Amino acid sequence: MKLRSDESLDRQIRFVIEADRLKTVARQSRITDSSRPENSAEHSWHLALMALALAGHAPAGTDLARVMAMLVVHDLVEIDAGDLFIYADAAAQARQEDAERAAADRIFAILPSPQAAELRALWDEFEERRTPEARFARALDRLQPMLLNMETGGGTWVAHGVATGAVLSKVKLIEEGSASLGAYARAMIALAVERGFLAPPG
Amino acid sequence: MKLRSDESLDRQIRFVIEADRLKTVARQSRITDSSRPENSAEHSWHLALMALALAGHAPAGTDLARVMAMLVVHDLVEIDAGDLFIYADAAAQARQEDAERAAADRIFAILPSPQAAELRALWDEFEERRTPEARFARALDRLQPMLLNMETGGGTWVAHGVATGAVLSKVKLIEEGSASLGAYARAMIALAVERGFLAPPG
Repeated sequence: MKLRSDESLDRQIRFVIEADRLKTVARQSRITDSSRPENSAEHSWHLALMALALAGHAPAGTDLARVMAMLVVHDLVEIDAGDLFIYADAAAQARQEDAERAAADRIFAILPSPQAAELRALWDEFEERRTPEARFARALDRLQPMLLNMETGGGTWVAHGVATGAVLSKVKLIEEGSASLGAYARAMIALAVERGFLAPPG
Repeated sequence: MKLRSDESLDRQIRFVIEADRLKTVARQSRITDSSRPENSAEHSWHLALMALALAGHAPAGTDLARVMAMLVVHDLVEIDAGDLFIYADAAAQARQEDAERAAADRIFAILPSPQAAELRALWDEFEERRTPEARFARALDRLQPMLLNMETGGGTWVAHGVATGAVLSKVKLIEEGSASLGAYARAMIALAVERGFLAPPG
């Protein structure tokens, strides 16, 4: 849609319309009523809401606005690359990383400069996990599918027969972002074992 | 899910899980590939992304973090109240307002105090449209379905035979939040008339 002489606004609107496609990217987790798989757009919203609701569990001084901005853009690359199940093998993970970088190159460049670089930097920050903001955002991204699994009779853990050790290995990413949410995730996994969603760790 | 002695965190997690239900609330607009109606959760994400992409069109000094936070929570009341088509009649609008207030009372109260009041205040601020942040957030909420209509052959305008005057009357809300986005919306409506999505204004 090209409506006016403001080239910047045209590009921003094109980016907004392109982003709509994230609503068609299916994830592995099902929503809490189990009716269908979650899509990556509503997942991103859920994470931004978690950033607000769980803000008190971020390290002191965490810039919540940057956490939210990161969460809103972090999955846009899946428009081209699709969603990869977190327990996929190393080769699949490496291919996915390449595809996501190429997608970031294409999608953020729809925006005018310097905004394209600014939003791309948010995506890079999330991926690199070096700042407290990125680590907290990443913790939420790991915690959310666990909550959905607990609400859907074990969800992807049961559907894919995921090993408890593999789930526990993901808790480190949560602990790095938030000590209290990491502890919560560990307690939740113990409960999942109790309920038979996960096998007792060997 | 009650896992630990931290009553606050239990309530925050309960709020996050309750919020998941917004993914099942259907709106009138269809997503850009026309495959299905948009849901209110992914719509909220799209608006938060628009806040980032279109930040330059907010009045100088607008607190973008509060805009995003408002957009993330603004539709939660639809979990109980459902989504009302914006061209519904005045009686239906009044009933909807009552239902949404009751829903806000219930849903935000799941959170611990004082957080419950803080997030409820964001919802009130959005509804009251008194601050530049609320007016900008509201402008995005009005602009987004227009963009979807333009991408889906006229969308709800065509499906419901909406009068061009009714669409133009909603542009005021966009102009109040952002002069440049208001002008963009007017140009878009002119194009919609040209394309036959809307009748020439009488």
